[in-house]
Amino acid sequence: MSGHETPHDDARHWLAVADAVASTLATTAVARDREGGHAASERELLREHGLLQLSVPAWAGGVGAPWSLIYRVVRRIAQADSALAHLLAFHHLQVGSVILYGSEAQRAKLLVGTAQKNWFWGNTLNPLDKRTRALDRERGGWVFTGDKGFCSGALGSDYLLASAWHEASRSLVVAAIPTQRRGITVHDDWDAMGQRQTDSGTVTFDSVVVEPEEVLIAPGAPGTPVVPFRTCLAQLVLVNLYLGIAEGAFEEARRYTRDEARPWLASGVERAGDDPFLQRHAGELWVKLRGAQVLADIAGDVVQRHFAQGSEITTAARGETAIAVAEAKVAAHQAVLEITNRLFDMTGARGTQRRFGYDRFWRNARTHTLHDPVDYKIRDLGRWALYRQFPEPTAYS
Amino acid sequence: MSGHETPHDDARHWLAVADAVASTLATTAVARDREGGHAASERELLREHGLLQLSVPAWAGGVGAPWSLIYRVVRRIAQADSALAHLLAFHHLQVGSVILYGSEAQRAKLLVGTAQKNWFWGNTLNPLDKRTRALDRERGGWVFTGDKGFCSGALGSDYLLASAWHEASRSLVVAAIPTQRRGITVHDDWDAMGQRQTDSGTVTFDSVVVEPEEVLIAPGAPGTPVVPFRTCLAQLVLVNLYLGIAEGAFEEARRYTRDEARPWLASGVERAGDDPFLQRHAGELWVKLRGAQVLADIAGDVVQRHFAQGSEITTAARGETAIAVAEAKVAAHQAVLEITNRLFDMTGARGTQRRFGYDRFWRNARTHTLHDPVDYKIRDLGRWALYRQFPEPTAYS
Amino acid sequence: MSGHETPHDDARHWLAVADAVASTLATTAVARDREGGHAASERELLREHGLLQLSVPAWAGGVGAPWSLIYRVVRRIAQADSALAHLLAFHHLQVGSVILYGSEAQRAKLLVGTAQKNWFWGNTLNPLDKRTRALDRERGGWVFTGDKGFCSGALGSDYLLASAWHEASRSLVVAAIPTQRRGITVHDDWDAMGQRQTDSGTVTFDSVVVEPEEVLIAPGAPGTPVVPFRTCLAQLVLVNLYLGIAEGAFEEARRYTRDEARPWLASGVERAGDDPFLQRHAGELWVKLRGAQVLADIAGDVVQRHFAQGSEITTAARGETAIAVAEAKVAAHQAVLEITNRLFDMTGARGTQRRFGYDRFWRNARTHTLHDPVDYKIRDLGRWALYRQFPEPTAYS
Amino acid sequence: MSGHETPHDDARHWLAVADAVASTLATTAVARDREGGHAASERELLREHGLLQLSVPAWAGGVGAPWSLIYRVVRRIAQADSALAHLLAFHHLQVGSVILYGSEAQRAKLLVGTAQKNWFWGNTLNPLDKRTRALDRERGGWVFTGDKGFCSGALGSDYLLASAWHEASRSLVVAAIPTQRRGITVHDDWDAMGQRQTDSGTVTFDSVVVEPEEVLIAPGAPGTPVVPFRTCLAQLVLVNLYLGIAEGAFEEARRYTRDEARPWLASGVERAGDDPFLQRHAGELWVKLRGAQVLADIAGDVVQRHFAQGSEITTAARGETAIAVAEAKVAAHQAVLEITNRLFDMTGARGTQRRFGYDRFWRNARTHTLHDPVDYKIRDLGRWALYRQFPEPTAYS
Repeated sequence: MSGHETPHDDARHWLAVADAVASTLATTAVARDREGGHAASERELLREHGLLQLSVPAWAGGVGAPWSLIYRVVRRIAQADSALAHLLAFHHLQVGSVILYGSEAQRAKLLVGTAQKNWFWGNTLNPLDKRTRALDRERGGWVFTGDKGFCSGALGSDYLLASAWHEASRSLVVAAIPTQRRGITVHDDWDAMGQRQTDSGTVTFDSVVVEPEEVLIAPGAPGTPVVPFRTCLAQLVLVNLYLGIAEGAFEEARRYTRDEARPWLASGVERAGDDPFLQRHAGELWVKLRGAQVLADIAGDVVQRHFAQGSEITTAARGETAIAVAEAKVAAHQAVLEITNRLFDMTGARGTQRRFGYDRFWRNARTHTLHDPVDYKIRDLGRWALYRQFPEPTAYS
Repeated sequence: MSGHETPHDDARHWLAVADAVASTLATTAVARDREGGHAASERELLREHGLLQLSVPAWAGGVGAPWSLIYRVVRRIAQADSALAHLLAFHHLQVGSVILYGSEAQRAKLLVGTAQKNWFWGNTLNPLDKRTRALDRERGGWVFTGDKGFCSGALGSDYLLASAWHEASRSLVVAAIPTQRRGITVHDDWDAMGQRQTDSGTVTFDSVVVEPEEVLIAPGAPGTPVVPFRTCLAQLVLVNLYLGIAEGAFEEARRYTRDEARPWLASGVERAGDDPFLQRHAGELWVKLRGAQVLADIAGDVVQRHFAQGSEITTAARGETAIAVAEAKVAAHQAVLEITNRLFDMTGARGTQRRFGYDRFWRNARTHTLHDPVDYKIRDLGRWALYRQFPEPTAYS
Repeated sequence: MSGHETPHDDARHWLAVADAVASTLATTAVARDREGGHAASERELLREHGLLQLSVPAWAGGVGAPWSLIYRVVRRIAQADSALAHLLAFHHLQVGSVILYGSEAQRAKLLVGTAQKNWFWGNTLNPLDKRTRALDRERGGWVFTGDKGFCSGALGSDYLLASAWHEASRSLVVAAIPTQRRGITVHDDWDAMGQRQTDSGTVTFDSVVVEPEEVLIAPGAPGTPVVPFRTCLAQLVLVNLYLGIAEGAFEEARRYTRDEARPWLASGVERAGDDPFLQRHAGELWVKLRGAQVLADIAGDVVQRHFAQGSEITTAARGETAIAVAEAKVAAHQAVLEITNRLFDMTGARGTQRRFGYDRFWRNARTHTLHDPVDYKIRDLGRWALYRQFPEPTAYS
Repeated sequence: MSGHETPHDDARHWLAVADAVASTLATTAVARDREGGHAASERELLREHGLLQLSVPAWAGGVGAPWSLIYRVVRRIAQADSALAHLLAFHHLQVGSVILYGSEAQRAKLLVGTAQKNWFWGNTLNPLDKRTRALDRERGGWVFTGDKGFCSGALGSDYLLASAWHEASRSLVVAAIPTQRRGITVHDDWDAMGQRQTDSGTVTFDSVVVEPEEVLIAPGAPGTPVVPFRTCLAQLVLVNLYLGIAEGAFEEARRYTRDEARPWLASGVERAGDDPFLQRHAGELWVKLRGAQVLADIAGDVVQRHFAQGSEITTAARGETAIAVAEAKVAAHQAVLEITNRLFDMTGARGTQRRFGYDRFWRNARTHTLHDPVDYKIRDLGRWALYRQFPEPTAYS
């Protein structure tokens, strides 16, 4: 594959790969949702199919796919399994963070390494959890100590993006370190009602040494629009996970309606799908889904356009991206909750049988839509709509 | 207790009993939801506390409580455990059916038996499932053969209300028979995503003999408004289960907000409960809950007023009751789905931890709100609103 | 009529009077909405039918109707004409304020006067508008000077409840004075998009002398729960006006559907009212209406129970009343906006003909539902739901 | 301007023209809404600015703008005045119909005529109203007789697209005839609660002679996908009118909030726009608007792509277009009704003053959204979502 933008054929290729992986994941998705825990072999499936290379630049030996394509791949996999899609997307988020934050040397080392060794990246960057502290080391670098929660994909990963709170400068340190680094313990303690195989548990740092050259953002480093651009990348991951869940749920409702549902005794129709009320549910949900999809696609283009500018990202570019992503996020949030709820109005009572596992759509959606409160995303959009004021750059907006 | 209306003190007594039972059930509700299956000891708890006697008339040795009180008891227990509340309510539904349908002799035998032996009744009346057939026996009576689905409370019961399809007359036979009757097999095969301990599985009838004196409604019996009055009783059971779930979920959201929730970083408040958006969720949900509660209370009074008329129930009385119950049902349906979804907007991400088990509220609500499609209940109310047309008397309307 | 509580027959009588008046008002309601302005002869209609006497105590020569009945009368009239109902209700609000705030002598004078001379009261009490100032007079009493907005019913009234801001004590003075008092000019300048005949314009006070014995609440008077109880009376007026509009709109939609609407070409039905989607609109709106009605009825009983206690009203009683009224208000607000919007989904395009005047329902509702923001009512209910905290006693909560 | 596709600069030019015209219309829009009736001089304004030429092909001397641009122009004008935008759009709909339906000779005559004489076209094609009958004339051609309703833009027009019911073939005849043709009387009898200056009244045909060469679709002509493609054009007109109203209303709410609104007394903020609840309204409405806008833009591209194929339009192309338009229509319908309602929650009570005329947004939206029932559009989308079934080609779907 050449170094320039992925041409149309490549996009088709990777979407086909995503479909194939999704099909495989689908066969065990209901069972694995029930079990929860670490999905080692499914993670390998993603790796084997080359999907970890999408965000790695072509110059480093990766695919160099645009984010718009990465998001579409994530979305397709999320149709079948939003937990594994989550892990894949968070991998790309870390790779994208290296591209955004890394020095030339760091990018060379980490991106080429990711290409050559097919590393799977995990997340231990969580600005809300300041329990992990960074202490200055005498001979340079820092020592990280303390716990960190919601570390999606850390378990089973090769490399981590890690943050720690540096009290002296009252700022975050961000570093890229191997998961096997001495002192790091990744706990298998994620036990939520949804997104059950996202390995989003706790990581303990016990005097973990972080060398200066591993630090992507040093304590007290001056803020630039590039830093919070990662938030845009991350928030649009959420959007596409929501949409994938919504699409998967809608497709199941559709299949069930056509193949299994019985018309209600008072409906007077012979085929469930001819029930006017059922058609109304399908139509209303479809419109919600379509609106969210197009907003997500547009946001994907905006993200890619500005991401390609690298360190040249301006405050305005970052602000416009944040707004485009926020619009897509609120629409996807509303769509996925409505679809995962109302799909049962299409299936009727027999759709609640546990063997179908249809409740997992709602549990996954409801869990993940709480990542950060939609109320504040709507508030940010209100401020934008009223005053053309960009969202305050934070790890969530 | 005298034979006339339960006085105020008695109501207070039984509501206190309900609260005590609910407290006990609450301690294991999350664990039992996870396990599913038959809740033998919890059913005994209901029995031991005398709750099975509420609907049994005083003249037969029972409590003779009005339905308005029975529903309130059911609702309270459903706050903690909507599956056990379901079993209790369905027991009373069968007792109520004996009162409505039984001859004087049948009522004497079955109601006194229930009072003296503290029988737990289960349901195998399901007009939608015509797989169980009733064949005429030469020496009188009928033989029931075939499967029946959605038999709430049949497992572990002492007595059953059973229906079978009588092809010759193209009508249902309804009988009351002991669960131990030869030929009856109650399967432990209920496995839904919610209401997991309602024992709502399959019952197999294998040449089960039903004596003439056990039959409450004979094949081809003329229809009266009394027969479909049972539907009103049953539908208002659903309403109060929905409301109990909604009340339980709201109370958890409230407790969590006050005791555990952290304010969002962008909120600028020190206490999560001071967040204006969180207060909005609480206020909106509260109004929905209150509207549904008062409609349910009013419907409970209407049901009791007409139930007390027994065989004198008129078509108009049955119709008005069906409308009052339908109004309450739609309101409760909408309230419980909205509350069980949005409670998470109050708790935030940490409320999705599996140890809280908060998703059970939604799973229970979403499962049970599919009993019959709310779309047709709304349609019936539309016809009423437009043409003052009563709902067609069926097992669901 | 005797001095004790209005018996059932009297209630029936006054509701019949209300219906008769409503019928007369209905014949010109569309035309008068178009014209706007002062409805002198329609106000006389209310007076002639004795409706101004409802709130006047029996001992003073009035009807002494409970507030629950007064609200029902207001609601019925609002079905036909929510502006005239507004005027009637605001009259009773002022009479109720005299009962709550007046000394024995004031009550004797003002209530007997109202009974004997059939006074129509208007409102010039508006705590938000502090332009009217009260200055201390040397020989006692005060002088009111300045403008006041939103003075419903002042135009054409006989007596006014008037407030003015007393800067020295930083508090409100509230007095009852004849509208003809020298220095008072009532402007005919109300020109809103709805509630067009409520005479809610500006009143100018130009050195208006207010005698000490005319003052119901003196500057700096200690606050008691009785003072903000007036807010409960006023807010429940709004609730019943909303409900009357909603009921009137629903009844028109129903009549139109049955008598005029044509089925849509793609519906396959012969009668518009048989269209499943139209039935759904009717059913959903009906449930919203019913929930709001029962909450309003309950709040009416709560108001009456505590109003009857007069100066003994406690903080808890006032708080509970405020919550009951707020619940009803939010429900009625939501119901009336939804009904006045969606009634057109029932009528279809031909229902927009100006001769029907159906848009007045929405314009009246939308105008009046902005009296005070529903967002803050919901917030108050959220605080109640979370912390059992009563609304802060103000002129709006 | 050259004959090929309008380049980017031309688009910018015409949008600037639209803005200028909109600004002029805005100065009198409130007053003209109040008066209603025929807006002769405002129609001339559209003509003078060359806006009637947008849809006329370049080869005929017109602008030859793509429909995507025409719709954007319509939307901008609708922000200020949705009635005049309606007239402009319906003019283009008739011109587009000539392009779709006309023979080469007809197109040459009618399009060149429109370009040279700047004709304003009006609509008298209404398939639902079969009162106008076409009778065969002995010497060829037809005679049209009877009334026709909802004839938008007929009054004051130069040319009409006209339909009549031909009973013998049980089909419609469609012709293009001069408005001045003997026997045609255009009544000024449109009097709806909204879209008041759309001249959508009745036209009477009294033995109007229609020559064979004036007929675009002859009685019994075989159906092709081209015929119902006009429905797509027409439905997307509605979408863009809805969106223009929504955009205009939102912009007013925004301006009012920033420039005029006062913070509510209980809000604790100094600027109304800092009220969290107001920001929520703005944010939620913004997302709805954005979703509808992007769906409309996409549909505009789809329409243009297939329109350009002319008589080659396939059933699949027409079906896909109908779906894209339906998606946009439902989203725009929901957005405009919500925005025109909730804008008042942003302005508060003072925004209801008649001088602002803010109710016209809702009246225009509510009137026009009843053109054909959204319930059936949703149903069509439900059928599409479930079965990939295209909408039945009619004048409304």
